[in-house]
Amino acid sequence: MKRAVIVGMGFGGLKAARALAGKGVDVLVIDRRNFHLFQPLLYQVATAAIEQEYIAYPSRAMLRKWKGINFRLGEVTGVDFDSRIVRLADGEVPYDYLVLAAGSATHYFGMQSMEEHSFDLKSLDQTVRLRNHILNSFELASSEPDPAKRRALLSFVVVGGGPAGVEFAGSLQELIQHELIKDYPNLDKSDTKIVLLEARGSILPFLPEKQRDYAVRKLSGMGVEVSLNTQVSGAEAEKVLLAKGSHIPAHTIVWTAGVQAAAIAAALDLPKGAGGRIAVEPDLTIAGRPEVFVVGDIAFLPQNGVPLPMVAQVAMQGGEYAGKAILSKIQGQPVAPFKYFDKGNMAIIGRNAAAVNAFGVLRFNGYFAWVAWLALHLYYLAGFRNRTMVGISWMLNYFFRSQQVRVISASIAKEESVPLKRSEVATSSQPG
Amino acid sequence: MKRAVIVGMGFGGLKAARALAGKGVDVLVIDRRNFHLFQPLLYQVATAAIEQEYIAYPSRAMLRKWKGINFRLGEVTGVDFDSRIVRLADGEVPYDYLVLAAGSATHYFGMQSMEEHSFDLKSLDQTVRLRNHILNSFELASSEPDPAKRRALLSFVVVGGGPAGVEFAGSLQELIQHELIKDYPNLDKSDTKIVLLEARGSILPFLPEKQRDYAVRKLSGMGVEVSLNTQVSGAEAEKVLLAKGSHIPAHTIVWTAGVQAAAIAAALDLPKGAGGRIAVEPDLTIAGRPEVFVVGDIAFLPQNGVPLPMVAQVAMQGGEYAGKAILSKIQGQPVAPFKYFDKGNMAIIGRNAAAVNAFGVLRFNGYFAWVAWLALHLYYLAGFRNRTMVGISWMLNYFFRSQQVRVISASIAKEESVPLKRSEVATSSQPG
Repeated sequence: MKRAVIVGMGFGGLKAARALAGKGVDVLVIDRRNFHLFQPLLYQVATAAIEQEYIAYPSRAMLRKWKGINFRLGEVTGVDFDSRIVRLADGEVPYDYLVLAAGSATHYFGMQSMEEHSFDLKSLDQTVRLRNHILNSFELASSEPDPAKRRALLSFVVVGGGPAGVEFAGSLQELIQHELIKDYPNLDKSDTKIVLLEARGSILPFLPEKQRDYAVRKLSGMGVEVSLNTQVSGAEAEKVLLAKGSHIPAHTIVWTAGVQAAAIAAALDLPKGAGGRIAVEPDLTIAGRPEVFVVGDIAFLPQNGVPLPMVAQVAMQGGEYAGKAILSKIQGQPVAPFKYFDKGNMAIIGRNAAAVNAFGVLRFNGYFAWVAWLALHLYYLAGFRNRTMVGISWMLNYFFRSQQVRVISASIAKEESVPLKRSEVATSSQPG
Repeated sequence: MKRAVIVGMGFGGLKAARALAGKGVDVLVIDRRNFHLFQPLLYQVATAAIEQEYIAYPSRAMLRKWKGINFRLGEVTGVDFDSRIVRLADGEVPYDYLVLAAGSATHYFGMQSMEEHSFDLKSLDQTVRLRNHILNSFELASSEPDPAKRRALLSFVVVGGGPAGVEFAGSLQELIQHELIKDYPNLDKSDTKIVLLEARGSILPFLPEKQRDYAVRKLSGMGVEVSLNTQVSGAEAEKVLLAKGSHIPAHTIVWTAGVQAAAIAAALDLPKGAGGRIAVEPDLTIAGRPEVFVVGDIAFLPQNGVPLPMVAQVAMQGGEYAGKAILSKIQGQPVAPFKYFDKGNMAIIGRNAAAVNAFGVLRFNGYFAWVAWLALHLYYLAGFRNRTMVGISWMLNYFFRSQQVRVISASIAKEESVPLKRSEVATSSQPG
């Protein structure tokens, strides 16, 4: 029996495993976490809208239902492509076929100061830290006598106008305006501030111009300051530095402006494309290694002249393709090149407000786009229980305008009783 | 306007605040966490049955609905009773009336080695660590070639046969038998072991003998080894030491065998009773300080010859009494002594199995006791959303026999990739 090893239990690894399940292949999925993380909803954990565990589905619970699939918790440190062996921190695993689907990490473009002073929205533990930090900022502000310091504590700068930045900024504004302002009656609403910084001339670049304008209008209407053509140059304690020389005082900085290949890519001696992503052939294999597939964010493949984007759809289609291609190869059948089919894009901005661009032809904004966004994300969320719980949470949140998971986890509240040293935190929660 | 300060947002502090709400008193509640923790369900968080945030209700969300009540996140370090000032780590708060309701901490009876090597079920963060540790033990066991080490990894010793120990042991056994055994097909069911150690001759001492026997029978039937008259003398890495000289190999030790007054009690120069609890007058005040009330676990008051037990009912009734007594004193009215009314006791053992002893006369076990336990705990759980979510969780858990929150939080998984150093953890999560 042939053995396939899948590195990473994100969207790509999951789809590859599913394609191989019950087909007479011995499959081992390796991940350094014991759960599949539904990253698109991380921003809702950060803004206290849903419980952290809803978007973390235990890998073994999922995989045990699929025949022939095993799981191992472990950190992959390298691959010996000649001997066909995956190296782990605590052992080695041989393979006949390999699917590398290790995903991505945050890219700071060399801005060490930004990495030290900002949060990202990539891992569950860092996102929970961000939630705690936001709530703690209000606690600190409520007993801060200095007006300038108080305003800085209540200022939130989000860098990056992609879906993650836009969705987080909108949801944070709802958290503040519907909940936190009521929680802290001694704070002045006008002291709170959310700024969304985007280096380019527009947010949500994958949407047509009309929809991008809609998104800016909506965000501004909610009170989020959208600042286009604004490049940042770094960060210091309590402030974001702008390339044009000025700065914005802020206790909380959230960086969503860059992604690169997961750290394991750098450890592999393979040709790379932009962002350290592994260059692959049209069939998602590595040149000269037809048994090694690379899918999702960690793979670099231009199609129609542009590299495939680092989004869930590409990973899912790539994972499924790799799983089926392995089956074809085992049976000695030829494999057609991978073709990504772009089903479209969407982004949610706030209550009753979203923008959908389906198949490049069906474009709509507002309430129905909002419903479509929620429905599609519920559909892709893994597990009956998680879907039920998130669905009910969303209903309660909608009807009561509440984002009620405003819990500062005890251990982190303590760390932050001294002002946050982001740098100390970073080393232990570095994604990759 | 008179100012009342309440220290602690547990059951006692909550009831005191509620009694004072809207009565023309300026009330400040101080707690070092930003949420009211529903401790009775902590064991379900430890056994992956419910999400951690369900039992943590944000204090400000609760208190903002009650008129005249404010909240401050802070650590109380002392009280100047002569000047009527509460000292915080970051400031001072004057009071006219004070309610000390700071609760309890785990008591190890001087066994430093036990404190270093065991988990307790008192705080949310330590309970989540315990959940992660249990799940991680199975991960470690699944790749452990040495049979003796593997059995130790799958052995769980629970010390203490009170409700916390019994409920945790039962729920852990259900987690293992219904879920983990399926998650790890390469592990042998017979290698798993749960031992419940009790120093006295029976578990659940507050129940009549027949019901205690029922509980032992049920637990044994589920496969939990109940060991009565077994005193522990300490712990070492991977083992519990027994007073009779032998030891039990176990990677996980859970200590539920002792409680004492919260750490703040020791910092106050006041007469103490057993467990460092503050000795109070029959009206729950401190001798010579009629404006200072002490309620709940932190107070020591014999009634009918025995000290009031450290249970939620005593705290709730004491808190409500203190709130009303403050109102009476402000109006110059006399205050009758506090009388605790024991409504009864209950403990849940497992699926369809519980024991109820209501008002000392109505005693029943089994399915209806189980339903009564669930209903009463849902009733006392704070917040519509939390009740809804826990209720639905319980239904799903019941019908699917699932305990699905089997998530190893990333930050902790990393800490534990080297064998758990419990002592390193303890310093940062010490209750008090």
